Amino acid sequence: MLIVMHHSATDAQIDAVEKAVRDMGLQAVPIPGSMRTAIGVLGNQGYVDDSAIRELPGVRETIHVSKPYKLVSRDFHPESTVVDVKGVKFGDGCTPVIIAGPCSIESEAQMLAAAREVKAAGARILRGGAFKPRTGPHSFQGLGVDGLRLLRLAGAAAGLPVITEVMRIEQLDAVCRHADILQIGARNMQNFDLLKEVGKLRVPVLLKRGMSATIEEFLAAAEYIVAEGNTDVILCERGIRTFERATRNTLDLSVVPLIREMSHLPIIVDPSHATGKRTLVAPMSKAALVAGAHGVMVEVHPDPDRALCDGAQSLDGKAFAKLMDELRGLLTYLGY
Amino acid sequence: MLIVMHHSATDAQIDAVEKAVRDMGLQAVPIPGSMRTAIGVLGNQGYVDDSAIRELPGVRETIHVSKPYKLVSRDFHPESTVVDVKGVKFGDGCTPVIIAGPCSIESEAQMLAAAREVKAAGARILRGGAFKPRTGPHSFQGLGVDGLRLLRLAGAAAGLPVITEVMRIEQLDAVCRHADILQIGARNMQNFDLLKEVGKLRVPVLLKRGMSATIEEFLAAAEYIVAEGNTDVILCERGIRTFERATRNTLDLSVVPLIREMSHLPIIVDPSHATGKRTLVAPMSKAALVAGAHGVMVEVHPDPDRALCDGAQSLDGKAFAKLMDELRGLLTYLGY
Amino acid sequence: MLIVMHHSATDAQIDAVEKAVRDMGLQAVPIPGSMRTAIGVLGNQGYVDDSAIRELPGVRETIHVSKPYKLVSRDFHPESTVVDVKGVKFGDGCTPVIIAGPCSIESEAQMLAAAREVKAAGARILRGGAFKPRTGPHSFQGLGVDGLRLLRLAGAAAGLPVITEVMRIEQLDAVCRHADILQIGARNMQNFDLLKEVGKLRVPVLLKRGMSATIEEFLAAAEYIVAEGNTDVILCERGIRTFERATRNTLDLSVVPLIREMSHLPIIVDPSHATGKRTLVAPMSKAALVAGAHGVMVEVHPDPDRALCDGAQSLDGKAFAKLMDELRGLLTYLGY
Amino acid sequence: MLIVMHHSATDAQIDAVEKAVRDMGLQAVPIPGSMRTAIGVLGNQGYVDDSAIRELPGVRETIHVSKPYKLVSRDFHPESTVVDVKGVKFGDGCTPVIIAGPCSIESEAQMLAAAREVKAAGARILRGGAFKPRTGPHSFQGLGVDGLRLLRLAGAAAGLPVITEVMRIEQLDAVCRHADILQIGARNMQNFDLLKEVGKLRVPVLLKRGMSATIEEFLAAAEYIVAEGNTDVILCERGIRTFERATRNTLDLSVVPLIREMSHLPIIVDPSHATGKRTLVAPMSKAALVAGAHGVMVEVHPDPDRALCDGAQSLDGKAFAKLMDELRGLLTYLGY
Repeated sequence: MLIVMHHSATDAQIDAVEKAVRDMGLQAVPIPGSMRTAIGVLGNQGYVDDSAIRELPGVRETIHVSKPYKLVSRDFHPESTVVDVKGVKFGDGCTPVIIAGPCSIESEAQMLAAAREVKAAGARILRGGAFKPRTGPHSFQGLGVDGLRLLRLAGAAAGLPVITEVMRIEQLDAVCRHADILQIGARNMQNFDLLKEVGKLRVPVLLKRGMSATIEEFLAAAEYIVAEGNTDVILCERGIRTFERATRNTLDLSVVPLIREMSHLPIIVDPSHATGKRTLVAPMSKAALVAGAHGVMVEVHPDPDRALCDGAQSLDGKAFAKLMDELRGLLTYLGY
Repeated sequence: MLIVMHHSATDAQIDAVEKAVRDMGLQAVPIPGSMRTAIGVLGNQGYVDDSAIRELPGVRETIHVSKPYKLVSRDFHPESTVVDVKGVKFGDGCTPVIIAGPCSIESEAQMLAAAREVKAAGARILRGGAFKPRTGPHSFQGLGVDGLRLLRLAGAAAGLPVITEVMRIEQLDAVCRHADILQIGARNMQNFDLLKEVGKLRVPVLLKRGMSATIEEFLAAAEYIVAEGNTDVILCERGIRTFERATRNTLDLSVVPLIREMSHLPIIVDPSHATGKRTLVAPMSKAALVAGAHGVMVEVHPDPDRALCDGAQSLDGKAFAKLMDELRGLLTYLGY
Repeated sequence: MLIVMHHSATDAQIDAVEKAVRDMGLQAVPIPGSMRTAIGVLGNQGYVDDSAIRELPGVRETIHVSKPYKLVSRDFHPESTVVDVKGVKFGDGCTPVIIAGPCSIESEAQMLAAAREVKAAGARILRGGAFKPRTGPHSFQGLGVDGLRLLRLAGAAAGLPVITEVMRIEQLDAVCRHADILQIGARNMQNFDLLKEVGKLRVPVLLKRGMSATIEEFLAAAEYIVAEGNTDVILCERGIRTFERATRNTLDLSVVPLIREMSHLPIIVDPSHATGKRTLVAPMSKAALVAGAHGVMVEVHPDPDRALCDGAQSLDGKAFAKLMDELRGLLTYLGY
Repeated sequence: MLIVMHHSATDAQIDAVEKAVRDMGLQAVPIPGSMRTAIGVLGNQGYVDDSAIRELPGVRETIHVSKPYKLVSRDFHPESTVVDVKGVKFGDGCTPVIIAGPCSIESEAQMLAAAREVKAAGARILRGGAFKPRTGPHSFQGLGVDGLRLLRLAGAAAGLPVITEVMRIEQLDAVCRHADILQIGARNMQNFDLLKEVGKLRVPVLLKRGMSATIEEFLAAAEYIVAEGNTDVILCERGIRTFERATRNTLDLSVVPLIREMSHLPIIVDPSHATGKRTLVAPMSKAALVAGAHGVMVEVHPDPDRALCDGAQSLDGKAFAKLMDELRGLLTYLGY
């Protein structure tokens, strides 16, 4: 940590800050400049809580050098992590994975049709939501445990591993019985109790970025899971909230190469939730792969115009098959 | 809902959209304009899911007229709600309430000192966190149930009702045993399962706005609680996330008079979390009251520079007593 | 500046960075920590361009300690600036000033009526726009120089100094002939050529914050004017752009006490543009004064529902008179 | 426009609104719903100023259906525009164009070297800034007219058309003498006077998106130019400002396919300014092309670590040549 003093800070103020640092068991190294003095803080083993310092007289600001994560950083763990979901691998050197399926599980017929279509087109994991977080209480809330059974059934029929969202700790048992990989949704990215529980399991986890989470917070959330011992974490960019409303969210695609620099965990992209518009899913899927994503998760529904949830961003089977053709070509071009 | 067609939409496309609306059991009223046709949708009892419409050929956009909330809106429920917390009342016509106490419960001595100080200064509810949501897993996470007991003890000693945050459903029993009002934090504003469970209780709830939640989403979250039968909901503005980083968040104070127009629920302000800076707490507390807030929640710690959490935004007892003097004068001026 | 190296940076990389700093004519002070090395940069007289450093091998990030402004900072110039506009004073110790008038100048009758109304109610400066920046080219663009004459006429009739916006350098002569204080609008906050020209004049300037400008950029823009020798700069917060769309912008009121800490320049608030809603103008005006603003600028139109611009956020004469009564009471309470 | 009344609006209020609409010379069509009445407004030839309506009693909100632009919309002008810059074509069906060169023009040697390198690598237009908008007044401000001459010289030597930014109207003559295409920077996207003047010329214009501009505002800014008769406008996405600070801006890549739907104008991407990080330029350039961009503009400097401006985001000649190799392969794959 670096403590920046005001230009006009007195020697007594500087001394008091140095003392406060030493009281925390750390070293204080004054760095006198031409304009002001700064004080370097040494000896910490990680992120320093600056509460005791930040508002002391004469302090202009404190600047953190350590990050609130370490286990997930490439700086401390240079080797890339590969996450294996029933033989489907995510990570550097592996062919990027396409996950597909409906936003929400609605019926056996719908799930079997969806599974058949996405499998035929080349998807390698089937998605479907049984527990749905919805902005208002008067919207469809998902089929719950019954939905989980339909998802498993459809996955088994098509020979695909399945992923579904878990929203609360009590659902973990049921979800783990039926799913091969757990999804933590954007609204739960900082549901720290849930992260810790998931960290105790030995099941792969897809962690979505919160809609206003910085990359630092995103990695710190992953750190919660990894700190409990579960290293099988896949990150997922799904758009952030900005002033722009022409799209549902703003897909922050530069996060893909940036996270590949900063972390050893794999990262995929969800262009469906990011854009909220069917016509943008194909160009953004391709862009994600070219930018280095380890996978893409796409919403596919046998009959999007009758979907109970997010139909406007879902592709039908035919459009998805066309997209997969294009993605396969692109992956071949990219050397996979 | 209004469906806006493209300028170049064909009659067949317009007919198809009208049919899709009727298939949803609703009425379609075409409104031909000089530039394009719009189609009004009538007969819905609330928010319409536009998934089946939005991406039909010829549709430019759909515009929602109904909101994802109704019970909490002043439009449907003009009379203001007053929430009573053990005799302390929040709402129109009531003297605004000052809630104060430390960010997190650290020890018996700290809580007793804090309670004594805030009571002496004139606060009417004691706050303190037992379960702390922290960005990184390596920070202090709160005392848990032991903290709840200390909070209750300190509240009883000072004769103050107490408020504390609940982060997960399993904590509800313990928290309800010790707290007079439950706090749902910003990170849980869209933890819909938690909202529903809290809605089944008959305990007052303080619901904080999510850090990137629109007012519409904020009210829809409150609707989750009220829809389950619990109408004792107090809203709390605590700053939103913007590009500005000189303050921890951006306090959106205009939300106070705006929510008073839109909803019958009381609304208070948390200037400590909103600004993250001790020196801004006093001016923003006063501004909140003048803008019409039904209360203010302030972080107070007997020794902020040694606080385990958020010390930089906490007032010490002396600064809080000074602030309370000023707020009392202001409230008298405002006619309370 | 502080240069933070990667955990795994080699000694050769650290040496290369130190050399690059010395090549810039600055000193490099290595600060070896337990996790990584940081390098302090000393000897600079202001903001350092880090281009030559930031992407060198082994560098994780560079952190600026110096700000891109100095003349406007309280750190280097502790004494508060008072700006005098024909005897109307803005600054610490002066009674806060209410500026009022229509968004745009429409006709002689409108301006005379507006001037009479705002003067009678107690406003001390008359505003009115002759050159209007409008999002689309098909909207009313202002009366131009004819408008300036009407503004001057109305100001003279009511005995009020007048303020108006200048959008381009070529307008400066005409505007200076008719106005007592120049307004630089939000869209021009970073029109650096205009700032420099205005800095060469000896006329007071009201500088509005850009709609997505950080406080640092806001102060750096003011520095452009002051660096040319014009120290009569008043800052104006007018709302920033966020994801929230229920209000036109988000009024960032905490900027008022924060800028009073950081800068010696006066700061006022424009609640009309910030909220875009007539009903929010009164509560936000009061909140601004309580938060420490040196003035408030309010849109007033004799007949808002027929205004050519921004009628929805304008008060009529009667509503403004009522607001002024309340503000006078509040100012008396605040000791003015 | 659609006017949405409150649930509790009275018949008299509804009548008053209808009358106000008719007073504007427009038709009012009431649409009574089960919950509330809405009023459709017909007969307008474009965007309606809703000032006279929005705050009338009983009105909940007004919703705009018309956009503040028309000439640039694909809805009214379905055929794609191709912009020709001295034989280099931007638009549908044309090979995407790579523009490259230094952020700022520093010297003859630097420009000749840059021009030679980017030409050899395959760039088709040379960029270089002579007038530089800088956040603070103490940074390098560009070589001005001398820089323009060096740009022209270097372009001629390499046989490349040249692009440079124009910041104010008085620079237009000089810039037009030396440049083949004018750039309007992000800070000037809403410098409406400049847009109008540029609209009167018959020179191609590259219009960059403002850092907090919505797509609607972006297209409305282009409308200013086209409305004056200059249809040779190329749009440029260069990142928007969000809460994320790990990158300089957030590249909003989904704007590329979206603007291709909404407008007939070509759109290119500037990954250098969008990300601010050298290592992200290559992946984002590729992603832009795959997403459908008609071009990419990249900062290239012969010696980035000694650049006077934005060195951290500049590629050197070797890195650029490598990128061009990859882009050429990608374009071939994409069928160009």
